[in-house]
Amino acid sequence: MSRQSNRTTDSKKMNSELFTLTYGALVTQLCKDYENDEEVNKQLDKMGYNIGVRLIEDFLARSSVGRCQDFRETADVIAKVAFKTYLGVTPSVTNWSPAGDEFSLILESNPLVDFVELPDNHNALIYSNLLCGVLRGALEMVQMAVDVKFVQDTLRGDNVTEIRMKFIKRIEENLPAGDE
Amino acid sequence: MSRQSNRTTDSKKMNSELFTLTYGALVTQLCKDYENDEEVNKQLDKMGYNIGVRLIEDFLARSSVGRCQDFRETADVIAKVAFKTYLGVTPSVTNWSPAGDEFSLILESNPLVDFVELPDNHNALIYSNLLCGVLRGALEMVQMAVDVKFVQDTLRGDNVTEIRMKFIKRIEENLPAGDE
Repeated sequence: MSRQSNRTTDSKKMNSELFTLTYGALVTQLCKDYENDEEVNKQLDKMGYNIGVRLIEDFLARSSVGRCQDFRETADVIAKVAFKTYLGVTPSVTNWSPAGDEFSLILESNPLVDFVELPDNHNALIYSNLLCGVLRGALEMVQMAVDVKFVQDTLRGDNVTEIRMKFIKRIEENLPAGDE
Repeated sequence: MSRQSNRTTDSKKMNSELFTLTYGALVTQLCKDYENDEEVNKQLDKMGYNIGVRLIEDFLARSSVGRCQDFRETADVIAKVAFKTYLGVTPSVTNWSPAGDEFSLILESNPLVDFVELPDNHNALIYSNLLCGVLRGALEMVQMAVDVKFVQDTLRGDNVTEIRMKFIKRIEENLPAGDE
């Protein structure tokens, strides 16, 4: 099935539970495959990056979102359109840096962790790290280099889940591909 | 987060694309981990089984579905409620065996394969085999032993995707756990 034909089909709306449990199976598999949590985190970020690079096409094709004027608009589109579309939740956008180049996405509820309890021997696991990769990969495709990381996580006992996003630079469109 | 508290939260409705791509990452990882497609198929079925065993609780808690009177009613609930809820599609129920113990679920569209093309070196891969395990695990929790397998697959060039389900036996509720 080509991606072109796919774009013209109606999107399927589904409840999040099967996704949540399937994501759990993925993380469990990676924990078996890799030596330590840091490696698993890295792998989740990398997988997420590859997903983001593809998901952005679907996102731009389905949504009527055009080029964002600034990072504040980008933040709003991520929270209100992208998260709502693909995870069914709308995080709040907050904790802006004075320079306007950093903000936080606060998730009161994170569908990825709905059935999850971290075992004691995985203290360094950033369970939902795939999401950071997805955001990084998707934004890179629209010429924005960003740094994305979890700074709070309900799985680790925090009251909310907080993803911190930092604008690094605008990627020039006409440059040849870099070495990343 | 306990599963009890989870059941009382509203379900999140999401588009299927992030799930589809995440499932692709899972299958890709398993193809790296295991020697051959048969092992990957087995692993997907096993993961699905473990997911089904948990998903059925969510399903029974959310839906108002009671005990099915017969296998025909079970088939309808699977197609019209379960698939619709967790994958956003409604397969048709067809090809009943004369004895009423076998039927097919025909999916005109399978969200799991939306962005997928099978590479040539994975001819024996049953890409969506997780679904068979989910159905088997979920039904076992409601005392039905079933055999579930793909008999057609659009990924392999068939016009539709067909999952064949065969009733094996009713599991007695009060027996001690078997050796499966």
